[in-house]
Amino acid sequence: MELNLETPALLLDEARMQHNMARMQERMNVLGVAFRPHVKTSKCLEVARRQLALGARGITVSTLKEAEQFFAAGVDDILYAVAIVPNKLDHALRLVRAGLRLTMLVESSAMAAEVARHGREHGVCYDVLIEVDTDGHRSGIAPADPLLLDVAAALTGGARLKGVMTHAGSSYDLHTPEALAAMAEQERSRCVDAAERLRAAGHACEVVSVGSTPTALSARHLDGVTEVRAGVYVFFDLVMAGVGVCETGDIALSVLCTVIGHRPLDGWIITDAGWMAMSRDRGTQKQVRDYGYGMVCDADGNAIAELAFNQANQEHGVLQWTGDIVDLAARYPVGSSLRIVPNHACATGAQHPFYYVLPQEGGVPRKWERFSGW
Amino acid sequence: MELNLETPALLLDEARMQHNMARMQERMNVLGVAFRPHVKTSKCLEVARRQLALGARGITVSTLKEAEQFFAAGVDDILYAVAIVPNKLDHALRLVRAGLRLTMLVESSAMAAEVARHGREHGVCYDVLIEVDTDGHRSGIAPADPLLLDVAAALTGGARLKGVMTHAGSSYDLHTPEALAAMAEQERSRCVDAAERLRAAGHACEVVSVGSTPTALSARHLDGVTEVRAGVYVFFDLVMAGVGVCETGDIALSVLCTVIGHRPLDGWIITDAGWMAMSRDRGTQKQVRDYGYGMVCDADGNAIAELAFNQANQEHGVLQWTGDIVDLAARYPVGSSLRIVPNHACATGAQHPFYYVLPQEGGVPRKWERFSGW
Repeated sequence: MELNLETPALLLDEARMQHNMARMQERMNVLGVAFRPHVKTSKCLEVARRQLALGARGITVSTLKEAEQFFAAGVDDILYAVAIVPNKLDHALRLVRAGLRLTMLVESSAMAAEVARHGREHGVCYDVLIEVDTDGHRSGIAPADPLLLDVAAALTGGARLKGVMTHAGSSYDLHTPEALAAMAEQERSRCVDAAERLRAAGHACEVVSVGSTPTALSARHLDGVTEVRAGVYVFFDLVMAGVGVCETGDIALSVLCTVIGHRPLDGWIITDAGWMAMSRDRGTQKQVRDYGYGMVCDADGNAIAELAFNQANQEHGVLQWTGDIVDLAARYPVGSSLRIVPNHACATGAQHPFYYVLPQEGGVPRKWERFSGW
Repeated sequence: MELNLETPALLLDEARMQHNMARMQERMNVLGVAFRPHVKTSKCLEVARRQLALGARGITVSTLKEAEQFFAAGVDDILYAVAIVPNKLDHALRLVRAGLRLTMLVESSAMAAEVARHGREHGVCYDVLIEVDTDGHRSGIAPADPLLLDVAAALTGGARLKGVMTHAGSSYDLHTPEALAAMAEQERSRCVDAAERLRAAGHACEVVSVGSTPTALSARHLDGVTEVRAGVYVFFDLVMAGVGVCETGDIALSVLCTVIGHRPLDGWIITDAGWMAMSRDRGTQKQVRDYGYGMVCDADGNAIAELAFNQANQEHGVLQWTGDIVDLAARYPVGSSLRIVPNHACATGAQHPFYYVLPQEGGVPRKWERFSGW
């Protein structure tokens, strides 16, 4: 495929993306839950519109910048899934006053009280979820912790407890269907437990929100859950292939790069995709198959098993030939194209201002903007 | 210091930056060479203007996007220090035709011939340096390689051989003054050797360009060198402190973040600076002192030795308390500020759309834009 792009360039295979979107939405439909995709992966309106068109109900964001950008484009039901802190409340207030149905997250009594105070002071009532810890990997309140009820009690006046939310991020460390199904059940049951404790204490707790790409695709049932969130499934990546929830052939993102030189005695090919184009994410390092800075493919996306992407500088990638001795400069001449499939779609995507959407029937790629920053 | 910023936010200490700039420029003046700073670190006009005001002659860039942005702002002497490939020549041509004195880099006969052909076809004569390999760390032609003269010979018609360029990037792996001085001398002498070979073959070779931050600051003399390039010195970072060419107190960049939660039983503090704010760069991992994802400081920039930044998710940082048992939530309450000094200034900077320049005498930080992408 000859694309006539300046490199490095982030390529998006729309057909694969649509397949990934449909797979997740269908699974959610079968499980009988609402689906609220996490748009931190794409940060792209064109992508989110397609998720919503397939049946997603609202979106999840990782920054208020994302909330602002997607709201400006017409998405009015947004969950900001990082615990809120005081310096972000004025920004949240502006969005709520402009008409956004924003849901915020808390995991401490202090912030629950502060959110309630801020809402009261400004004459609004914020919708709030309590973050629940179901796997010990990061933040949240354990279902049995007395703090859960204290936080709920603090959400009065300018804040309303809407429900509970958890993210079993430790699912990324697993790689068997059994372990993933068990983690999905743990995520579900502990989050439902937290909701039940709150209901027993008199709170309505209408929302029970769970999710990560691996658990969402591994859950056998989601009884008691009202919505699921997942992000990276939309593109997938090598880490997800290592976890076992996709094949490398499902991965919709790659970085187009160009051979800029060779070091024949070392078996090196130098390209113009360094860590600025790939990110420094080495997420496959701890997996069974370590892909270095990404899986090297030819211009059509076919993997070249003998090329290992072991070393990256800012704008240089160094690919190590691991096969039998060949004339690398003849096989991959200066100016020829390669594609690199990323370890982590969220991290690689964040390095680029655009997606170049691969044309399905030839022609020039379309450009879809993505945003960044806070 | 109370800054009233939404977090995470990239802070720039202008006084430290000015000190770093002056130190490098003075050293170059003493060594009697021109200085051409690499602006890939800052990607910021305000920063480059200050480098030029102190005596820099032209700039070095890592992408044609940088060349375009800085040229639009009036910088008209730019070295693009990544070997050129065919898909970038039309872009380079547009810049040259608009009046930019652009110097390009080649390291193969094929590209030398292609650059000359492109220039001839479009009625321009491109200025070209040959990349010389002086330490085996990445790209370039060894001084004694017959290829050096072949490449020079191919630069006729639409291209002109202006000189040679090298970057001793392996200096980043060193950490003693003796080893650094030896590498600086190796970089100098081998690059001068390449120039002499070219001159002996009848080429003028007016430019002999060397540099990396560690070698620039470690060279005892630079006889035969005409210009030095360095980038990260402008801000410095933990990797450079580990190499030994600065103190942590010289580092001008940090990421302001906010405590969003605690996990008391694990000794964890959760912040809103994850890898999106810091980058995934783990450059200190192989150094004597491994800082994880960065050096944790209080809001005034004083290091907190007991807090280790061991774990990062997209918008969450996990800091591990390593000291005696304390009440972490009382000492670092939710909503309180911390600052994280980065491993690698180029990588962390690239995650942010702005620098917030710390006010010298109180008041509100100024915002300096930075650009990204290709």
